[in-house]
Amino acid sequence: MAKLQAGYLFPEIARRRAAHILKYPDAQVISLGIGDTTEPIPEVITSAMAQRSHSLSTLEGYSGYGAEQGEKKLRAAIASTFYADMGIEESDIFVSDGAKCDISRLQLLFGSNVTMAVQDPSYPAYVDSSVIMGQTGQFQKDIEKYGNIEYMRCSPENGFFPDLSTIQKTDIIFFCSPNNPTGSAATREQLTQLVRFAKENGSIIVYDSAYAMYISDDRPRSIFEIPGAKEVAIETTSFSKYAGFTGVRLGWTVVPKELLFSDGFPVAKDFNRIVCTCFNGASNIAQAGGLACLSPEGLKAMHEVVSFYKDNTKLIVDTFNSLGFKVYGGEHAPYVWVHFPGRSSWDVFAEILEKTHIVTTPGSGFGPGGEGFIRVSAFGHRGNVLEACKRFKLLYK
Amino acid sequence: MAKLQAGYLFPEIARRRAAHILKYPDAQVISLGIGDTTEPIPEVITSAMAQRSHSLSTLEGYSGYGAEQGEKKLRAAIASTFYADMGIEESDIFVSDGAKCDISRLQLLFGSNVTMAVQDPSYPAYVDSSVIMGQTGQFQKDIEKYGNIEYMRCSPENGFFPDLSTIQKTDIIFFCSPNNPTGSAATREQLTQLVRFAKENGSIIVYDSAYAMYISDDRPRSIFEIPGAKEVAIETTSFSKYAGFTGVRLGWTVVPKELLFSDGFPVAKDFNRIVCTCFNGASNIAQAGGLACLSPEGLKAMHEVVSFYKDNTKLIVDTFNSLGFKVYGGEHAPYVWVHFPGRSSWDVFAEILEKTHIVTTPGSGFGPGGEGFIRVSAFGHRGNVLEACKRFKLLYK
Repeated sequence: MAKLQAGYLFPEIARRRAAHILKYPDAQVISLGIGDTTEPIPEVITSAMAQRSHSLSTLEGYSGYGAEQGEKKLRAAIASTFYADMGIEESDIFVSDGAKCDISRLQLLFGSNVTMAVQDPSYPAYVDSSVIMGQTGQFQKDIEKYGNIEYMRCSPENGFFPDLSTIQKTDIIFFCSPNNPTGSAATREQLTQLVRFAKENGSIIVYDSAYAMYISDDRPRSIFEIPGAKEVAIETTSFSKYAGFTGVRLGWTVVPKELLFSDGFPVAKDFNRIVCTCFNGASNIAQAGGLACLSPEGLKAMHEVVSFYKDNTKLIVDTFNSLGFKVYGGEHAPYVWVHFPGRSSWDVFAEILEKTHIVTTPGSGFGPGGEGFIRVSAFGHRGNVLEACKRFKLLYK
Repeated sequence: MAKLQAGYLFPEIARRRAAHILKYPDAQVISLGIGDTTEPIPEVITSAMAQRSHSLSTLEGYSGYGAEQGEKKLRAAIASTFYADMGIEESDIFVSDGAKCDISRLQLLFGSNVTMAVQDPSYPAYVDSSVIMGQTGQFQKDIEKYGNIEYMRCSPENGFFPDLSTIQKTDIIFFCSPNNPTGSAATREQLTQLVRFAKENGSIIVYDSAYAMYISDDRPRSIFEIPGAKEVAIETTSFSKYAGFTGVRLGWTVVPKELLFSDGFPVAKDFNRIVCTCFNGASNIAQAGGLACLSPEGLKAMHEVVSFYKDNTKLIVDTFNSLGFKVYGGEHAPYVWVHFPGRSSWDVFAEILEKTHIVTTPGSGFGPGGEGFIRVSAFGHRGNVLEACKRFKLLYK
């Protein structure tokens, strides 16, 4: 625990935001920091959850412990909605209370004697959960890295896909696409390379696709679109950013039966044991919501939610482009990655907060490769996003 | 992982139950095995959850990520309802998706280099999560124990409270009271002893009080009723068995600010970091249900639920007493602990299942000290419990 650097990023930002509000009690603070959804959940989904709640007070509708892996119907719906023609079956799906929670259960599965690689920059939960599990060695202040983690630099120079020829072999590779924070999504060719790389090295890829519905073109939504991926990859994802379920808590992880440890033992069997011992299933009410999400009306409603945030994204991208910044991401993800060359991310974060009352996220919070960047989240009410764009224009015109 | 013995107990029982149903497709199987609630959730609680669901589709009612530690109002209500006059404050409460999940997060906090003690018998999640964390050493088949776990034998001979003078000092002591599976609840004097023992040894007690509302007399409902406990104990508990929330998923853990590691660092600060990194808060809808549970009507409704299961318990206790068995538990917990001297628990389990179509739980599944016992759960519809008692009488008359 003592090896962990400062606070987990987002609570740290929340603290700074709170301090700012104390300093400027009348300021109209706009949060484009933590990627938290702001738009109401479509009614077709909340109605299903309300109905399930009510039915829990009836003799016929009551249910106690569900299967730790999730309700059969929901697992089947996830398999057929997201993984049709990929050979992923209901039994490969583990329903959960969210991708972040599943990442730490996966870390429990891997234990402390594994090596891991992460994209740099990337969502901090991979590294932090790895530190807690004792996989990482000491933090090296001079290079802002943990000794035993392989950082796969993703920068504008390499199109945000690591040069795999320079990457050391590790047991586990965390790979997030569309990437949080850079917003870039890997192409089919890149993912084919990645799968081949993992196969050659005997690595397991943990593929985080929590933003897959934001992809605009025909890039893969799932790692399992890549032939051979079922033998090397786990995929973890969530309803949070599609249906506004950040507070409702529902996600899933796919562990294909084809994925084996080097001794031939199925990874899914061990993960099942972790899930049964350390978890008791997602809330049955949230699962009813998940099932509604995957009905034809629910899917349509989720696409509308995603579209709304994508329109926000475009406003933000256009704003920073018009101000002459180099802007990345935004096309396949609700995150815009803005370059402030030569400046410290935390300084830019503080400058924006101080002068515009807008909360962003400093890129260096996602790894040393994020230094000099700011992540601007597109989750927000339209009015707030428009107002934020106006303030950015005033500050940087 | 490979050190884990067979399956986690309850999925194992579920498998045997399924096999039985396959063999006797027409049998009316009654489950008094896994401690799963069967009675509908009181309407005052489900209405609150339905209302919260609906409000999530409105602009004013929508909320995204909540605090990882739980909503302020709920934390405050838990503190004032269960810990008034004990010096436990809102900030000491961590709301969760259930005690089992929190136990594994606590194990993550402790890491792999700690020693632990458990009551023998006890709820298997303590040992299994400890094995997964790598704390336990190898399983020793001859004595049915893990090498590095201190088993605190709780038997009729010692009134189900361990003889602490024979117990080795460990870093962590898991203590469940009212105990699952024996149904016994520790007295004030016993808990005072336990707290003193922990203080002398520099141990942390993880006190599981998930059945505290089932206590019939003035025994402590919380370890924090014992002076000095705040410096040595964590308490974990749940709404599951009070409000029928086994499927809804809501619990909490108390980590008092007075609890410090040997270097003086507050345990709560590290636990907070675990919660923020590995968890994203309990479902907001479940939390709305929790708040309703703690309203005056909700509390009354929960007491009625508990009363109902306690009446079931009495029926089961009376049945086995009338058949001449030595029966323990049942007074302060929804579990009846029946002695079959000289017999194997799994054999008795199989005999009861085969001859009466009733699922129970073999005592040895809770540790070697449970050998020769059967746990009969009092969670069931009244008609099923009455029918089960009739069948027990036929089998053992």
